[in-house]
Amino acid sequence: MSDERKVQEVLARYVRTTDRRDGKSHGALYTEDATVHVFIKTGHKSGHDAYEAVGEPIIGASGVEYAMDNFMAPHPEGGSSHHVTSDHLIEVDGDQAHMNAQFVVFEVRAASRPAAGWPEDAFGIQGTVRPIESGYYDTDLRRVDGEWKIVRHRVLHDMPYVFPGA
Amino acid sequence: MSDERKVQEVLARYVRTTDRRDGKSHGALYTEDATVHVFIKTGHKSGHDAYEAVGEPIIGASGVEYAMDNFMAPHPEGGSSHHVTSDHLIEVDGDQAHMNAQFVVFEVRAASRPAAGWPEDAFGIQGTVRPIESGYYDTDLRRVDGEWKIVRHRVLHDMPYVFPGA
Amino acid sequence: MSDERKVQEVLARYVRTTDRRDGKSHGALYTEDATVHVFIKTGHKSGHDAYEAVGEPIIGASGVEYAMDNFMAPHPEGGSSHHVTSDHLIEVDGDQAHMNAQFVVFEVRAASRPAAGWPEDAFGIQGTVRPIESGYYDTDLRRVDGEWKIVRHRVLHDMPYVFPGA
Repeated sequence: MSDERKVQEVLARYVRTTDRRDGKSHGALYTEDATVHVFIKTGHKSGHDAYEAVGEPIIGASGVEYAMDNFMAPHPEGGSSHHVTSDHLIEVDGDQAHMNAQFVVFEVRAASRPAAGWPEDAFGIQGTVRPIESGYYDTDLRRVDGEWKIVRHRVLHDMPYVFPGA
Repeated sequence: MSDERKVQEVLARYVRTTDRRDGKSHGALYTEDATVHVFIKTGHKSGHDAYEAVGEPIIGASGVEYAMDNFMAPHPEGGSSHHVTSDHLIEVDGDQAHMNAQFVVFEVRAASRPAAGWPEDAFGIQGTVRPIESGYYDTDLRRVDGEWKIVRHRVLHDMPYVFPGA
Repeated sequence: MSDERKVQEVLARYVRTTDRRDGKSHGALYTEDATVHVFIKTGHKSGHDAYEAVGEPIIGASGVEYAMDNFMAPHPEGGSSHHVTSDHLIEVDGDQAHMNAQFVVFEVRAASRPAAGWPEDAFGIQGTVRPIESGYYDTDLRRVDGEWKIVRHRVLHDMPYVFPGA
């Protein structure tokens, strides 16, 4: 498998483990000295998007695992999500790599089957799929013992993010 | 072209033939002994998603062709769709391959041009694009006479599917 | 990097430069004799989608740059977009290549932070992501001095497009 594809598959595991809220498997994608920064777009400056950091960076595989297990909202009953990535730009240089990708997050909410069964006129999929977030992932990776790991990950949100009490 | 890309392009043809409701071209992507199973998610069990099979499996290229031509709702006038796949994980081992991908289905409904022409204030695209289904495809393929064919395909829906009379 | 991936990355740059409305960087993806045609779907004919050309073709890198800088609506304050491409079919033959891809355009609208700050009950992302356009890109490329450039690009919209005064 080409290194570019291996790098891209790290992101494919990133989205699955995020959507499952599986902190342990998600953390395992990072090195212990990795940094994760979250940004929100604040506008344009001389033709480029301007961003502002939100909160403190998260540090390392164990920090990422802890953050996902403790700070990420669990899905409600019937809920799930898909972080969809696309249009990757990947550069590999020896044991270093850089990847930039677009992301759109879809929130999925399955309808609950009524106790009396689905109504007579129910047909097809029961529930909703809704895009709720978007932006870019900008990621540096390093090959460690033959495996590509994230060493620096930046989540560049298109829209502001409000934390309770902030 | 790498085998991983060849395998991924089978799915690229899968979505186009599905969106066109072209049963013959769609069926040609499968071997004659292929199986297709449709599942819906029923919840989580010990950290993994739990699924339940819906209906009987479809068997073989000709079974898939028949099912698409006879059981899949045609698009209404002005209607179309896009099955979008992303974040593929592909493993090739000799003449066998396994692929897992996310999917989101978009329903497209073009507005009809009024007999008197578009209204004065109409501008831009006329119609709607709406995500309606999502889940994962989990697919085994085999190389047959140099071509990758689907031998086992599982559609893992995030949300329940109701069939009339069910 | 494989030629197929290089070709696909041309499209990855195409979507970023379009979303940023960066005519100069977008134009640089085309040869000076390139043609760009926009089509809208008008229905089906013997199992295939039928399309109709909209307007005149755009010619060459400089024509594309001019069109993007002068005829494409700028994003409003807090607005951005993502042209998401998927399910690419790519054929490379020496210094020629052909690519077909699905696209869905998402319109992003960030909410403005109220002068008095976000409301007490605000939580999470503030704004909307909405799919507004879809279709296929069908693109021919040529390798020029080692770089893949677009020589013919066709935008195949699923839905009609109305221009003011048309």
